[in-house]
Amino acid sequence: MAGGIGSRFWPISRNSRPKQFLDILGTGKTLLRSTFERFLPLVPAENFLVVTNAAYCDLVLREIPELSRSQVLCEPIGRNTAPCIAYAAFRLRAIDPDAGMIVTPSDHYIADENIFREVIGECADFIDGRNSLMTIGIEPTCPNTGYGYIQADNSCRVTDSIYKVKTFTEKPGIEMATAFIESGEFYWNSGIFIWKPDTIISEIKKSLPDMYELFDSILPWYNTSQEEEYIRKIYPECKGISIDVGVMEKAEDTFVRCSKFGWSDIGTWGSLYDHSDKDGEGNVVPAHSALFDTRNCIVKAPADKMVVVENLEDFIIVDSPDVLVVCPRDNEQNIKKYIEEVKFRKGDRFI
Amino acid sequence: MAGGIGSRFWPISRNSRPKQFLDILGTGKTLLRSTFERFLPLVPAENFLVVTNAAYCDLVLREIPELSRSQVLCEPIGRNTAPCIAYAAFRLRAIDPDAGMIVTPSDHYIADENIFREVIGECADFIDGRNSLMTIGIEPTCPNTGYGYIQADNSCRVTDSIYKVKTFTEKPGIEMATAFIESGEFYWNSGIFIWKPDTIISEIKKSLPDMYELFDSILPWYNTSQEEEYIRKIYPECKGISIDVGVMEKAEDTFVRCSKFGWSDIGTWGSLYDHSDKDGEGNVVPAHSALFDTRNCIVKAPADKMVVVENLEDFIIVDSPDVLVVCPRDNEQNIKKYIEEVKFRKGDRFI
Repeated sequence: MAGGIGSRFWPISRNSRPKQFLDILGTGKTLLRSTFERFLPLVPAENFLVVTNAAYCDLVLREIPELSRSQVLCEPIGRNTAPCIAYAAFRLRAIDPDAGMIVTPSDHYIADENIFREVIGECADFIDGRNSLMTIGIEPTCPNTGYGYIQADNSCRVTDSIYKVKTFTEKPGIEMATAFIESGEFYWNSGIFIWKPDTIISEIKKSLPDMYELFDSILPWYNTSQEEEYIRKIYPECKGISIDVGVMEKAEDTFVRCSKFGWSDIGTWGSLYDHSDKDGEGNVVPAHSALFDTRNCIVKAPADKMVVVENLEDFIIVDSPDVLVVCPRDNEQNIKKYIEEVKFRKGDRFI
Repeated sequence: MAGGIGSRFWPISRNSRPKQFLDILGTGKTLLRSTFERFLPLVPAENFLVVTNAAYCDLVLREIPELSRSQVLCEPIGRNTAPCIAYAAFRLRAIDPDAGMIVTPSDHYIADENIFREVIGECADFIDGRNSLMTIGIEPTCPNTGYGYIQADNSCRVTDSIYKVKTFTEKPGIEMATAFIESGEFYWNSGIFIWKPDTIISEIKKSLPDMYELFDSILPWYNTSQEEEYIRKIYPECKGISIDVGVMEKAEDTFVRCSKFGWSDIGTWGSLYDHSDKDGEGNVVPAHSALFDTRNCIVKAPADKMVVVENLEDFIIVDSPDVLVVCPRDNEQNIKKYIEEVKFRKGDRFI
């Protein structure tokens, strides 16, 4: 899944170049490319499908030249994750009805990729003989209110770390998140799923029958040269809804693999700060910088730019060629406020 | 005089484009061009001489296309104001021994240009029949420690506002500056002088005989095609010294025209802040900006850049294509510290 616009990383992420196409972590690779390479030891390149907005098709192919054009599934319009996953599932079933399907966002951070691949492999084995939905839950390290949570059913433990799912919960308030953590039953919802295409299609049929009908109505055309033309027709009619709310919360035969491999959805500048290497004063600094009396700041700038800062604490400084943002690090919502204000004043020019 | 490098406006001013070649005040014109136009009602274009570093000759001609190449006097190396003024005086005397000479920096701010021109005209009349040195003193509005001071001799008043000079004083400490202001005898030294070339040459001969000898040794070549070649030979041998320290402090027949037309040498980001229009929160903002909870800041950025700031007070934000500076507004010395640090780390790349 590579269709998001990642507006919380504005002004680095733009409508024309969202977060997954950026080297947000400074690894030398975009998040999309890192995601591809993370799975490559498990999945041959020809077995990847990337669902993205039609506008980003070329960006995807530039980042992953190993893919053929037919492996990029173009959404004519963003409709959240449920239609995106439905589309991929219908396509995959048309290619191979017995295939396993791993669904993953393309803009996450994974610290230990070996453990990650072990976990994914185990999940793939788990769903091999079953018509179950499988999701990756992350052992929480704090009561993060930016994530959805999965409650494991402790009375229904299948293996050491695979449980039946009791509930899915959208982003909770801080009190609820704290209670979740204390209970020991809750895991962060990573948005990574493992299942067979037929399994998820059946669940979509149950929970989102209208959406199912739309995708089912063009059944003869999946994996043909006319697929995209038909997708362009039905896709805008789909309801925009996440797979969690649309399907997972209602599904019954759902399991969670409780995992710990160092994970973040890198959803905000604050979480990028948390997951970045820091200097002795707690600053995340770019290639060229000179900081004086400055602590716990994150500075992002083009690689060839020099940034000089004095007397700031807990600030974000983000410089892009046409937008500069200097703001406190503690308010995760401020970036959206800035985008709205700039949009109101100047239209889409800087968005 | 347009030879300075204006390092205190780094990173906007650079070795390759010093302050006088920038539109620091956001008027749509560079300081050099504004200076030229300020004098144009008094002095025909063909009577200007611009002394600058040889490296900036093209910049001068681009800014003031009204000048011919021979009106740009090229210093092979910066040697402070005494040699610069000596050079111009020798050239001017060679053109017209009876000319009046107005010496002015090219990077100052003048609020009321009409009063300014009246004052200059009055001074020009004053020196017409005399071999006196004339300087413009500015009625001080605060005990600024960044300026030199001129003490007027109240017992020797020539007109309403022209006094004999008692002393010239280099930048004083704050106690002394405060005492200066309280005395009512002291004026800011604007660095603007009016005299005849022969008068200043005689004073240079008295106070800086070595320098005089150097310039006098190439007397046949002023205002000829070989002048520059000879200047290149003698100039590096000149001592680097200001006209104030080298000549004015020692000269006897010196007068000050006490004036009030709104003046600043715009020597620092802080003084630029003082002389710029502010929004309701005391911020000096660029064309495109969105400020939240931000007060008394000065933000400089390229005209096509959007700057978003939250929760800053009394800060300077200066963005140039390859350097960004974010620092407190109160410390006038910090820019020099940054330049040294960046030079130490990266050499001249960002200087």
